[in-house]
Amino acid sequence: MKKVADEIYGYSYGEPEVAASPVTLQQLEELKASVGMTGEDEQYLRLAGQVLADQTAQVVEHWRGRIIGSIPQLARHSRTPEGNAIPEYLAKSNLRFRQWILDTCNRPYDQDWINYQEEIARRHTSRKKNQVDGVRSTPYVPLRDIIAFIAVMNETIKPYLGAKGHPAAEVDRMHNAWCKSVQLQAAIWARVYMDGTATTMEW
Amino acid sequence: MKKVADEIYGYSYGEPEVAASPVTLQQLEELKASVGMTGEDEQYLRLAGQVLADQTAQVVEHWRGRIIGSIPQLARHSRTPEGNAIPEYLAKSNLRFRQWILDTCNRPYDQDWINYQEEIARRHTSRKKNQVDGVRSTPYVPLRDIIAFIAVMNETIKPYLGAKGHPAAEVDRMHNAWCKSVQLQAAIWARVYMDGTATTMEW
Repeated sequence: MKKVADEIYGYSYGEPEVAASPVTLQQLEELKASVGMTGEDEQYLRLAGQVLADQTAQVVEHWRGRIIGSIPQLARHSRTPEGNAIPEYLAKSNLRFRQWILDTCNRPYDQDWINYQEEIARRHTSRKKNQVDGVRSTPYVPLRDIIAFIAVMNETIKPYLGAKGHPAAEVDRMHNAWCKSVQLQAAIWARVYMDGTATTMEW
Repeated sequence: MKKVADEIYGYSYGEPEVAASPVTLQQLEELKASVGMTGEDEQYLRLAGQVLADQTAQVVEHWRGRIIGSIPQLARHSRTPEGNAIPEYLAKSNLRFRQWILDTCNRPYDQDWINYQEEIARRHTSRKKNQVDGVRSTPYVPLRDIIAFIAVMNETIKPYLGAKGHPAAEVDRMHNAWCKSVQLQAAIWARVYMDGTATTMEW
C-alpha cells in the first residue's frame, strides 16, 4: 500500500497493537448503504488516490497551516496549554494526516480499516491524545469541531481533485466519493467519543 | 418566516416549550468558524432558500421515498416494530422535514435556532422519538445513520439547487453553504446524543 513516507512516526495501521473495534463488517455495510457508497464510488476513490498522491503535503499545509492555524479554538490542539508551538508534534501528526488522505482513497474498507478509524478517533479523545507523540497539549479535540471541520476539508479538497485535468464530471464523482467516505468515518469516530457510556446504545 | 404549510403538526420552532440548550452563542460562533461559514455563505443560503422554496416536497420525496424507503435499516424508523407502514407519521414528519430545509436556508442562526437543533436531535433519540406524533416505532435513530445520511442529502440536493438556472459557480456556492450548515447542525445534534454522560465533556 502506497505511503507518504517510508517511516511515519506513530502510524500503526493494521498492526496488532491497534485495538479491535466492536463495530462489525455488517454494520460497516449498513453504514455504506446509509452514505450511499457504491462500487463506482470505490473506483472514484482509487482515482482520487492517484490524483492526490503527490499533493498530500500541499493539502495538509492548506488545512493545518492556512485554516486551522488561523482559528484559535482549533490551533490550540497542536500547541502546549500555554499556547506555544510544538513543531515536532505538528510535523509528526501532519505526516499521519497526509497518510490519512491516501488511506481514505486507497485502503479496502475492512475490519483493519474500522479498527484504525477508531484508533484515529481515540487519539483525538482524552484516552490517547498526546500519548503517541509524548507531548503536552490540549487533552482532547471536541467532537463538534471534528464534525464541523469536515465541511472545510470537503470544500477545500475539490480543487486538488481537479488539479490533474480530469473532466468536471469526474472531479464531481471523485469529490462525492470522498465526501461519502469522510462522513462514514465521522460516523465511526462518533462511537469512540460515546464509548463506555449508556448512550453508546444509541450510537 | 416562510413556511411549507400554514399548519405543521409538531413544529415548535421558537416556541417556549422548546428546552433551552446549554450551547451558547459563543460556541455557535466558534462552530461557524470551524465549518468555515462566512457572511457570503449566509447570503448563498438565503438564495438556496429561494431556489428550494417550491421544491421541498420533491426533495423530501427523493430522500424519504426513493432512498430511505429502499434501505431497510433506515426505513424501519418510520414503521411499527413489526414493520408496518404508519402513513400519518410519515406525512407529519415529511412536512417537518420539508420545513427543516427552509429553516436551514432562511433562519437566523441564533439561540432559538440552537434550541431547535437540539429539539430535532432529541426527537431522534429515545428521549423523544415517537412522542410528538404519538406513534409506536423504533425507539431511536442511531446517530451513526444520521451522520452517514448527510452524505446522501448533500449529494442529492445539488441538482435541486441548480434547477432554477443559476450559473454553475453560484450553484457550487449555494451547495457549499448548504453543506457547511448541515455539518454545523450535525455537530450540535451529536451533543444531544452524548448528553448527560461523562463524555459530554468532550463534545
